[in-house]
Amino acid sequence: MTQAGRRPGTSETREEILSAARRLFGERGYDGTTIRAMAAEAGVNPALVHHFFGTKEQVFVAALDFPFNPAEAFQRIMPGPRHEFGQRVVHYFLTVWNNPQTREPLLALIRSATTNEQAATTFRQFVGATLLGRVADALRIPRLELNAAMAQMVGVALLRYVIKIEPLASASDDEIVQLVAPIIQRYIDGG
Amino acid sequence: MTQAGRRPGTSETREEILSAARRLFGERGYDGTTIRAMAAEAGVNPALVHHFFGTKEQVFVAALDFPFNPAEAFQRIMPGPRHEFGQRVVHYFLTVWNNPQTREPLLALIRSATTNEQAATTFRQFVGATLLGRVADALRIPRLELNAAMAQMVGVALLRYVIKIEPLASASDDEIVQLVAPIIQRYIDGG
Repeated sequence: MTQAGRRPGTSETREEILSAARRLFGERGYDGTTIRAMAAEAGVNPALVHHFFGTKEQVFVAALDFPFNPAEAFQRIMPGPRHEFGQRVVHYFLTVWNNPQTREPLLALIRSATTNEQAATTFRQFVGATLLGRVADALRIPRLELNAAMAQMVGVALLRYVIKIEPLASASDDEIVQLVAPIIQRYIDGG
Repeated sequence: MTQAGRRPGTSETREEILSAARRLFGERGYDGTTIRAMAAEAGVNPALVHHFFGTKEQVFVAALDFPFNPAEAFQRIMPGPRHEFGQRVVHYFLTVWNNPQTREPLLALIRSATTNEQAATTFRQFVGATLLGRVADALRIPRLELNAAMAQMVGVALLRYVIKIEPLASASDDEIVQLVAPIIQRYIDGG
């Protein structure tokens, strides 16, 4: 694709689409929001939304300043032997949580999902559609086991980075991998 | 002990002690608050605090309307064979979370611990001193493994009851026990 010259109003249009998207995701959740509806709300052609952002998933990441990109996460955790999946997931998880630039928005996300029912719904639909669904399909793992593996990691994040319970908060990354990766692997392997 | 006749002002005194306790726990955390300090703050004799509530732990449970009593939890999960500890813990956990009367205050606790650093500290110190410490001592489990087992359960609570991710949210209690109890047991048994 050739680089389009900067047109007047481009960044304003982009911003208008994002703010329309935020409103719609907030009101209707992830599943209930379409590119077409965002475009109508922002008064632009749907093709322009695709042109600026690509997919609905990408609009969501941009609009909600989402701390990680599910497509990138998927690319980071999938390649490699299946019996090392647990290790790769826990390593990636630590990378995301150890970096203050991604940790802070993740904390904000947990806060809003625990205080606001609509935020919880949106988060659930988004993560389900973009990450859990893909991983479950690619590895053919039952969803329930995948949920439980995610719960193990979310719980570690909460106790290690938010509640800061000891010795979990001060444990090294290697200790966390040794502790948690076999559990994730066990869920993947089916107990 | 003989039942003391109802004296005028008894319930007011009790309320004053509780509100002094809430202030001190809020400012100094669990570890930094003593019965003596509460008594001084409320302008009563420390013996009166013991008379009304018993221990610091019990004042805390009463003052913060804490959704479960650690001493009672300990009594519920400890008796029985060691190899069924995982099952007992998960059953107790489901009892507490399935009951709206204890679920709501637990949710409030998670919300305040994720939004307020002092609340997180107080929660950490209280749970560490009253429940995790006792269980770790009684079963001689390393604290790190116990933290990870707690993380598994906290994560299940968050995804099942707050974010309501499927199929975890709709799974039966029996499915949750089958899914999670072996993990808790594995941490207890040392991997």
